[in-house]
Amino acid sequence: MAILFQNVTAVLMDPARTMLRNAYVAVDGGKIASVGTVKPAGTFDRVIDGKGGILLPGLVNAHTHVPMTAMRGYGDGHDLHDWLNNFIFPVEAKWDDRAIRACADLGLMEMIASGTTCICDMYMHTLTVAQAVDHAGVSGNLGIGAVFFGEHFSEAACTDCKLQDDLFRAWHGHDGGRILVDSSLHAEYTSPEGLAQWIGDYARTHNIGVNVHVSETQKEHEECKARHGGLTPIQYFAKCGMFDVRATAAHCVWTEPEDWTIMAEKGVTAVHNPASNLKLGSGVAPIVDMLKAGVNVALGTDGVSSNNTTDMFEDMKLAALLQNGVRRDPLALTAWDALSFATVNGARALGRSDTGSIEAGKWADLVLLKADALSLTPCHDAVNNIAYAAHGGDVELNMCRGKVIYEHGEFLTIDAERTRREVADYALPLLFGK
Amino acid sequence: MAILFQNVTAVLMDPARTMLRNAYVAVDGGKIASVGTVKPAGTFDRVIDGKGGILLPGLVNAHTHVPMTAMRGYGDGHDLHDWLNNFIFPVEAKWDDRAIRACADLGLMEMIASGTTCICDMYMHTLTVAQAVDHAGVSGNLGIGAVFFGEHFSEAACTDCKLQDDLFRAWHGHDGGRILVDSSLHAEYTSPEGLAQWIGDYARTHNIGVNVHVSETQKEHEECKARHGGLTPIQYFAKCGMFDVRATAAHCVWTEPEDWTIMAEKGVTAVHNPASNLKLGSGVAPIVDMLKAGVNVALGTDGVSSNNTTDMFEDMKLAALLQNGVRRDPLALTAWDALSFATVNGARALGRSDTGSIEAGKWADLVLLKADALSLTPCHDAVNNIAYAAHGGDVELNMCRGKVIYEHGEFLTIDAERTRREVADYALPLLFGK
Repeated sequence: MAILFQNVTAVLMDPARTMLRNAYVAVDGGKIASVGTVKPAGTFDRVIDGKGGILLPGLVNAHTHVPMTAMRGYGDGHDLHDWLNNFIFPVEAKWDDRAIRACADLGLMEMIASGTTCICDMYMHTLTVAQAVDHAGVSGNLGIGAVFFGEHFSEAACTDCKLQDDLFRAWHGHDGGRILVDSSLHAEYTSPEGLAQWIGDYARTHNIGVNVHVSETQKEHEECKARHGGLTPIQYFAKCGMFDVRATAAHCVWTEPEDWTIMAEKGVTAVHNPASNLKLGSGVAPIVDMLKAGVNVALGTDGVSSNNTTDMFEDMKLAALLQNGVRRDPLALTAWDALSFATVNGARALGRSDTGSIEAGKWADLVLLKADALSLTPCHDAVNNIAYAAHGGDVELNMCRGKVIYEHGEFLTIDAERTRREVADYALPLLFGK
Repeated sequence: MAILFQNVTAVLMDPARTMLRNAYVAVDGGKIASVGTVKPAGTFDRVIDGKGGILLPGLVNAHTHVPMTAMRGYGDGHDLHDWLNNFIFPVEAKWDDRAIRACADLGLMEMIASGTTCICDMYMHTLTVAQAVDHAGVSGNLGIGAVFFGEHFSEAACTDCKLQDDLFRAWHGHDGGRILVDSSLHAEYTSPEGLAQWIGDYARTHNIGVNVHVSETQKEHEECKARHGGLTPIQYFAKCGMFDVRATAAHCVWTEPEDWTIMAEKGVTAVHNPASNLKLGSGVAPIVDMLKAGVNVALGTDGVSSNNTTDMFEDMKLAALLQNGVRRDPLALTAWDALSFATVNGARALGRSDTGSIEAGKWADLVLLKADALSLTPCHDAVNNIAYAAHGGDVELNMCRGKVIYEHGEFLTIDAERTRREVADYALPLLFGK
């Protein structure tokens, strides 16, 4: 299907930082066929008039836990230990596949409606999450977040090693690489060294990426150093061989200068989750320093239960503002930086050089904002408006790989009504007894 | 006109922190007639079915500069000095009343659509801003932000003293107190002691409130101390007699413990502007400490040029998250605290004990959120959803003093189309030459 966007302000996020007014973007066979200010020749099955609105690359949510949408606001106002042990964990013990699917669909609806076209998800029941992502039409790097609590680690004794392999075999590379499976470890404090090494080995053997939580809290960071002869989580994982492949490290709040050097050398992406890190009292990640050290920085919302939305525009704004405030430097991070985190940098983090910017030959992962959105009026600079003023509610249309999956409030892949019913009638009673 | 809201989750923000499911809220003669879970007797001109959505008090934006909506994103990415001198001030020199009215209307549209029913505004051409606020139907405390740059202050030599008086005589108490005029000083660094004393005298003489910018930047705070024998802006203004009346101090980022004692004793409200303070690199206001010291804390968006929206839900979320993060305490501020800032505390700050909560006898300043908003689904706790997950785009209906002024995307007081045309065809060319 050939589609032409016309009359848009296109923010390309290409290396030249091009912003084209009155632009045409042609889409064919799922890919971007051309970008320019002259109407391209040829016939189109559909012409979408942006009415002067902004067209930007689809957003990449590089760290999230989609089904946790079910727990929005649940247990808020309790301390971390109480929240996890008395609210989150007991609920998580009740999940079944039907509830996971319903809540994954609900979470994906929120993400799609707010302009996300690609996610990196780590959670439970991932075989079912994969079905949801596949059906929704977005791209996804999926992981299980492996843990092992037994005394003696072995592959045979580790349920999650089998799950990792099951997920890889079932889904990796599906639909032309729209779904990828990463080798995924929960964290240093929930796994022995054997599992960390296994995760690295598995990634190298199958030529896939790694994702892992890193230095989210000071406690985690310091306890890792105490356990491993002064090695930080980044240093420890590097030693375990987890960073000899493409890798994303979520949070990185307490990482140190030596960590940034390793990350820059090894190409490990720091996935910044500013809302979650603030809400849980974890702190403020040293993003500006990491950028200076040459680290690739991407952006994630984390799960809804610690955000409490998956609107990437909110985290983009927060990322842009937060460093300025805590460093007391109004130029610490720019609007361009924040938008890069949420697009090109996220794509790079997930091994997807074929998305994240609007360039001919890349996948047509595109988001059109409403031309008449009040929060975007007036528009002196499209990038400033995207990073500081836009919100998920300003999304008019979401296109993944050339297919419109959301437009003007309607979902074209997910059955919204059925999803709401499944969540209300099945998942919430199962999880919360109501 | 008698209106009944039914089938709503009502977050009353009363002292008992009541949250009523399946609530009825009756409105008559502009006031709230009754609140309860039993359908009230009587006939109603209109019944509004909330379909289970949240009804909350209209939001109070306690510090803003409405016409600056014209400058959204203008000059972003330049340092403060460059931004002010080469972008903001040259544009501000070009304002005329027609442009002010157009841009005030545009700004009020954004505010109304995102649930604000009451503002405290300080800007130029305030006689025209007052017309816009009056027409829009919201409540407003309006001020001029007086400055004096001459060598010898006298009331006769001070243009802004005359403006203050003109504004007071024209608008104070208009429409049953819907519009109030405050005695308004820009800041310590833009006025001599004589003007600060005059502003205090004027407020006492006319029994009105004071509003002023306080300790927004470290530079401002320290230079004040150097100029005034060690007195901070709060201490200096107290000495000038500005705090012997109801007063709001915007920003307060660099205030000190001694300041909080004075503010608590004198009843001076700290108006927190977290987005603006972060964006401009000013810092993080010590809100939690101020609360502990007994200071009333309200919330503002500041002007669009330093935010870049006027969506109070965004600043509410930011206020709730930010203190947790920088204090590394997930319970530093709760969702309740943030919602209090944006409702009851704001009302108190502006001398409006007759709004800010849903209680019989108060003005019917009410906001209904969309029952099916994805960001509010599921709803385990309405207050958590409001503070952490809601966004202006989730507002279904805005009612001020019993009158619906916005519903389902339509403005019922402001002519949206004419406003957009006036901004595009008159104001933007005048201000920006385009």
